[in-house]
Amino acid sequence: MKPNPDIIISHNKPKAETFLSQIENKNPLFITTIATTETGKIPGLSAAGQNPDFTDFTPPADAELLLLGKCKSIQSVPITPDGIPTPGLITMSALKLADIPVIIANAGCKVKPQIPYIELGGNSGRDIRTGNSVDNVKEVIERAKTAGQQLAKTSDYIVIGESIPGGTTTALGLLSALGINAEGKVSSTLPQNPHNLKTEVVQTGLKAAGEKFGSLNNNPIKAVSCVGDPVMPALAGLAIGATSRVPVLLAGGTQMTAVLALINTLNPEALDNIAIGTTRWVISDPTSDIKGIVNQFCKVPILAADLNFSKSEFPGLQIYETGLVKEGVGAGGASIAAMAKMGSTIDKELLLKAIERNYSVLIAMK
Amino acid sequence: MKPNPDIIISHNKPKAETFLSQIENKNPLFITTIATTETGKIPGLSAAGQNPDFTDFTPPADAELLLLGKCKSIQSVPITPDGIPTPGLITMSALKLADIPVIIANAGCKVKPQIPYIELGGNSGRDIRTGNSVDNVKEVIERAKTAGQQLAKTSDYIVIGESIPGGTTTALGLLSALGINAEGKVSSTLPQNPHNLKTEVVQTGLKAAGEKFGSLNNNPIKAVSCVGDPVMPALAGLAIGATSRVPVLLAGGTQMTAVLALINTLNPEALDNIAIGTTRWVISDPTSDIKGIVNQFCKVPILAADLNFSKSEFPGLQIYETGLVKEGVGAGGASIAAMAKMGSTIDKELLLKAIERNYSVLIAMK
Repeated sequence: MKPNPDIIISHNKPKAETFLSQIENKNPLFITTIATTETGKIPGLSAAGQNPDFTDFTPPADAELLLLGKCKSIQSVPITPDGIPTPGLITMSALKLADIPVIIANAGCKVKPQIPYIELGGNSGRDIRTGNSVDNVKEVIERAKTAGQQLAKTSDYIVIGESIPGGTTTALGLLSALGINAEGKVSSTLPQNPHNLKTEVVQTGLKAAGEKFGSLNNNPIKAVSCVGDPVMPALAGLAIGATSRVPVLLAGGTQMTAVLALINTLNPEALDNIAIGTTRWVISDPTSDIKGIVNQFCKVPILAADLNFSKSEFPGLQIYETGLVKEGVGAGGASIAAMAKMGSTIDKELLLKAIERNYSVLIAMK
Repeated sequence: MKPNPDIIISHNKPKAETFLSQIENKNPLFITTIATTETGKIPGLSAAGQNPDFTDFTPPADAELLLLGKCKSIQSVPITPDGIPTPGLITMSALKLADIPVIIANAGCKVKPQIPYIELGGNSGRDIRTGNSVDNVKEVIERAKTAGQQLAKTSDYIVIGESIPGGTTTALGLLSALGINAEGKVSSTLPQNPHNLKTEVVQTGLKAAGEKFGSLNNNPIKAVSCVGDPVMPALAGLAIGATSRVPVLLAGGTQMTAVLALINTLNPEALDNIAIGTTRWVISDPTSDIKGIVNQFCKVPILAADLNFSKSEFPGLQIYETGLVKEGVGAGGASIAAMAKMGSTIDKELLLKAIERNYSVLIAMK
């Protein structure tokens, strides 16, 4: 089978090609890990939700969208303050098109989704400026590992995405605590990436915890507990558990580099069986540098779905081309998985058509 | 492949043979649905747990045993007052031997298991003598359907077991409310089946609900709400969701006839893709009549694992031959699935050896 030309090999080419050849024409399972953190409510940090308090509803609503094709916890779908739909719309469309099974893992949502989900025993996260942001890190890692081991038996490979507003700031937090320089390198849902604010928030958190850059590089559990978010232990545990048997595509942008760094300190050999799958919007983002983060500690390959909404008939989708949103809910990884599964049957044009169709149905529900 | 001679075709032979041919050499997913009900604490009803209050710990401990190979919520493993190990030991051994993935679905446990589990949104059940025993029946059915639909995409077929102390009494309750005569026909974990007590408990529940035999045969949701238990809507929903795509083996004894009756009123065509998988101890039990219940409303076939512990070196296992326990945690269905998957590689002798090995490890932990 010819590789799908709409899957971009973005980084660490030989490993990326090997990974791609392992997933082509194969049946994946898609897991979305959801949680909330008070960090996401710091004004100016995230566009994931119409207003800060609304971010509590974004992850459960995303989860409902993937499983039911519509939301239950909110009307319509999660949108940014500018009216741009959640990237979960892309994920849902890709998974539906390629008939890929989806499972939700709850790592700590304040508002529980009204659907079946795997409970991993975490709590919603506190503001990382407290220096004490996440509970039960070790236990969640263990439970997620157990889940990953079992779920890996059911599928050729596992795709793992996330939905957590504020996740790039906590990514900067964890990366900094582990001694990886990510300042100015993490992505944002906003076109004007608020790097200074993120750095300030992370510095405040590290200081409150009595820590500094790199001081927790031998204590990843504590690093997450101090300045991380609840999806991190869940994602790392799921990936470590699943890679003992099958390849894992971490579906997300720069947030996933923090997960890689966590895995690197917990179980580095798992990285040999992992790739990052994201969107063209992330890899071509001038305000962030996913490769620059990964290169500091591993050779994990990066794939990107060549999504392009510039010709969409919907302004709400076109606006993705201006740098808003970029990624989330595993949109890039789900698109890659759909295209890899179905070969040339699904290309970016067909995917956009499906996204537009689903979008029009969803806005009609409003 | 020759059918495994240790899988007994027990009822509705042609359909059973067709079902068996569909699962031979195939990869199943095993789901155990767990919950608790105060009904299980009525003295004299159940042997599932050392004393009535201990029954709150039996389902979570069974779930932990399946996923981790040991329990966390309690020391050692769930045992009866006489020291007989949980049938979950059989299930765990069979699944391990055949490398079958397992997922736990929580339909309403008072004590939550310390492992990852699918949360279906139910609550622990009340004593059916109140006539108001189960919450959220409709919602749990819907969520379980959604989960069943997704999980069915990952596997060739689905095996669904249960762990709920008191489940045969609530089965009698639901069957009676739906107008199916199960008096004196449901099984028991005890060799002296307390039929009179079960009937009395059910009659009290129906009366308290202002209902009588058959009066809810057109209102299955209410029937479960009044005199059922929390695993019923979960099992029915999972089965209905999964059968739209793959065969479903309901792994249990007479309790599963109540689930069949529930499915029969909700979505009868799903029954065409379902079999019951149980143990020899259930089909040859002189104190119950699984076929006599099934025959009243459907042609679902019954398979049974030809388990025989009479030659076991462990008295705790030998005692299964006296009529104690008989079934539970999907022991029969898991054994059938393991033998069907691996053909003649796994027979009842090998399975007993694995059970004995795991048993000796577990009692050594005590």
